[in-house]
Amino acid sequence: MTLSKERRIGRHATLLVLADDKTEQQDLIDRLPWKSCNGKVGSMDSQKVVAAIETAAKQTGVIQSGVYRETHALYHATMEALHGVTRGQVQLGSVLRTVGLRFAVVRGNPYESEQEGEWLAVALYGTIGAPVKGLEHETIGLGINHI
Amino acid sequence: MTLSKERRIGRHATLLVLADDKTEQQDLIDRLPWKSCNGKVGSMDSQKVVAAIETAAKQTGVIQSGVYRETHALYHATMEALHGVTRGQVQLGSVLRTVGLRFAVVRGNPYESEQEGEWLAVALYGTIGAPVKGLEHETIGLGINHI
Amino acid sequence: MTLSKERRIGRHATLLVLADDKTEQQDLIDRLPWKSCNGKVGSMDSQKVVAAIETAAKQTGVIQSGVYRETHALYHATMEALHGVTRGQVQLGSVLRTVGLRFAVVRGNPYESEQEGEWLAVALYGTIGAPVKGLEHETIGLGINHI
Amino acid sequence: MTLSKERRIGRHATLLVLADDKTEQQDLIDRLPWKSCNGKVGSMDSQKVVAAIETAAKQTGVIQSGVYRETHALYHATMEALHGVTRGQVQLGSVLRTVGLRFAVVRGNPYESEQEGEWLAVALYGTIGAPVKGLEHETIGLGINHI
Amino acid sequence: MTLSKERRIGRHATLLVLADDKTEQQDLIDRLPWKSCNGKVGSMDSQKVVAAIETAAKQTGVIQSGVYRETHALYHATMEALHGVTRGQVQLGSVLRTVGLRFAVVRGNPYESEQEGEWLAVALYGTIGAPVKGLEHETIGLGINHI
Amino acid sequence: MTLSKERRIGRHATLLVLADDKTEQQDLIDRLPWKSCNGKVGSMDSQKVVAAIETAAKQTGVIQSGVYRETHALYHATMEALHGVTRGQVQLGSVLRTVGLRFAVVRGNPYESEQEGEWLAVALYGTIGAPVKGLEHETIGLGINHI
Repeated sequence: MTLSKERRIGRHATLLVLADDKTEQQDLIDRLPWKSCNGKVGSMDSQKVVAAIETAAKQTGVIQSGVYRETHALYHATMEALHGVTRGQVQLGSVLRTVGLRFAVVRGNPYESEQEGEWLAVALYGTIGAPVKGLEHETIGLGINHI
Repeated sequence: MTLSKERRIGRHATLLVLADDKTEQQDLIDRLPWKSCNGKVGSMDSQKVVAAIETAAKQTGVIQSGVYRETHALYHATMEALHGVTRGQVQLGSVLRTVGLRFAVVRGNPYESEQEGEWLAVALYGTIGAPVKGLEHETIGLGINHI
Repeated sequence: MTLSKERRIGRHATLLVLADDKTEQQDLIDRLPWKSCNGKVGSMDSQKVVAAIETAAKQTGVIQSGVYRETHALYHATMEALHGVTRGQVQLGSVLRTVGLRFAVVRGNPYESEQEGEWLAVALYGTIGAPVKGLEHETIGLGINHI
Repeated sequence: MTLSKERRIGRHATLLVLADDKTEQQDLIDRLPWKSCNGKVGSMDSQKVVAAIETAAKQTGVIQSGVYRETHALYHATMEALHGVTRGQVQLGSVLRTVGLRFAVVRGNPYESEQEGEWLAVALYGTIGAPVKGLEHETIGLGINHI
Repeated sequence: MTLSKERRIGRHATLLVLADDKTEQQDLIDRLPWKSCNGKVGSMDSQKVVAAIETAAKQTGVIQSGVYRETHALYHATMEALHGVTRGQVQLGSVLRTVGLRFAVVRGNPYESEQEGEWLAVALYGTIGAPVKGLEHETIGLGINHI
Repeated sequence: MTLSKERRIGRHATLLVLADDKTEQQDLIDRLPWKSCNGKVGSMDSQKVVAAIETAAKQTGVIQSGVYRETHALYHATMEALHGVTRGQVQLGSVLRTVGLRFAVVRGNPYESEQEGEWLAVALYGTIGAPVKGLEHETIGLGINHI
């Protein structure tokens, strides 16, 4: 059941959201032997962050649209990543704050045993703060789930 | 008040905990124009994680031992990072789980305006899971605070 | 102060929301020596769930409309039941999910000692999930309060 | 993706923990076309509740001992059920309260589509209160996860 | 149902914990037409805070020892006051912090209508911080419940 | 690092929100050797409470408008005070409740050592309850942060 060092999907997803340019990102993606997607979302509505990640993951085929268990796995991984971003209450506009985030979803097999199957990593990186440009600091979140 | 791209202390702290070997870590540290420290802690007791980070930050002079406001700033940054790691309840042993974490603390001035002064970033990366080797997955947390 | 086996108001309220048809429900209600009400509510707005239960309890006389302490007792029992339904954050639409719930409120005296007086049980059962038919699973909640 | 009425694993698991005697329980189990287990646990230590459920599920073969993804699925379902039981903070002894619970774990395929595969339901029912006999009221929790 | 200005039990309880000397406290108590108690507790164990308040309230007759509904009402008022003190996670030692608190419990009838009956206020005031003298700041909490 | 008895900014801020008339308030303010502001806000939207406090603190010069670290310090102190007011979930309208609050912000140096610098106290006092006049009880919150 050992977590393989080369297959740490959470680390891969996080490096992807920390990458500053397209070339660096593409490099990281090319090295991944798995399905992945990434994108950006900025909002005061937490549901828009959840929706943006789900839409990207479905459109790129990282998860299957018609299978609820895959949506369920992604939803919980996303909510866990949002805990890291919001640190206490999964709320944005209702506590007068907004986020500007890059996201990445990686679907891979992080364990050496084949039985462990596929897992999902959702990574978020960006800024959180008052709804005024510059009144913000960095934030990170990572969610991992079996799929 | 703009957050300077080169001075993103949260990104620096996260890259530091994601670094796999000493050389890579030293490289990252050498590039930082700020004080920082890093280390490892594994425990089922959340207070031991908090204590390990505080001790390291004080011993390396990242924060001043005799000044409460610095301890206070670090404490809240650490608690916010633990929210990312625990994703819901800041509890480990009491919900039968354990962590093995690398930590990094970076103290720098992330904003272009001098008035914004110094800030702290606490990054955590490692595994969380059942108290049995291998029954674990990755986890990340980041806390940012003014100091 | 012993909790009487026959008077477990929480169990009665839960069996009521688990009952699949009117006959089964009516049977359960007829066996109860207490005031009760039940109904259905589906929404992405958590406040609508709270309001539907309060309205039903007041209209059926399970709680008295003009007495704040009764509304207060019901409110907290409802919020506790919602914790079971939402499991972490008492949020629905703001984290992109919706519920379809049956609810039941039972007001009775569950303890053998007369001094313990009346208590309220609020039970919820139904589905929670994405705002798309079928992308959902079951959920249950129970709140108990003295009145 | 429709949830099948006959296959509502959460409802089955809850009826199982609400059953008052062995005959009633056995009846319910005999009707289930799936693997299940049930038991009792009383403690002020939340980790003992988590451990009791895991041990029972592994010993009865409801989940496979050597596969982390199954332990992971059960862990999260258990934690969700504990949210319903504790309603706010997943803490027992540290806030001076104790539980006496029956638990049931049901592993089945609740959806009509075969693609949706297997899911787990963890149901808890019993009492929560001060560590003094009688100073307690009923409590329920249900967690559902894909496996 | 109006809250009477003279009978704001929460304000009375808070002024009582803010009073710096015995004379000032006695003055406030003499002006109260209700039962009350007050005391001090310092601990890293949150359950000791809960227990100290319960013991004081029972020994002074503010609540009746043999009636669970009164213990239940006090427990929830205490937990709500602890939310104000801990601001996020009702945890002390497990997140490496300790409290030194004065507490007051006031039992009165804050509403003009007689039907509203008796209510409880639990107020807490003191310091919270690292388990080192001086590394601490002030904290307040108030819980209100019907009894 | 000792907290000076005369300089307990949290106690001062709380007494300010508990003061019932302008004369009493002015008296308290005159005795304070620090900057402070106070006001009122009533809303079902938690973000309006946050905004009202921030606006008052900036307009009266208690914090500097153009400096993010001061806004950041106030934001977290306000959120901590809201934990005391909401006791569990920092939500108002979304769980069908509303607040009517007085607020006070005090900026001072509570510690004997000069090195500890300035700190902020945000105190809130008022009522919380159903969106119907009279269906409400008292509530208090206090947040403290270094600035």
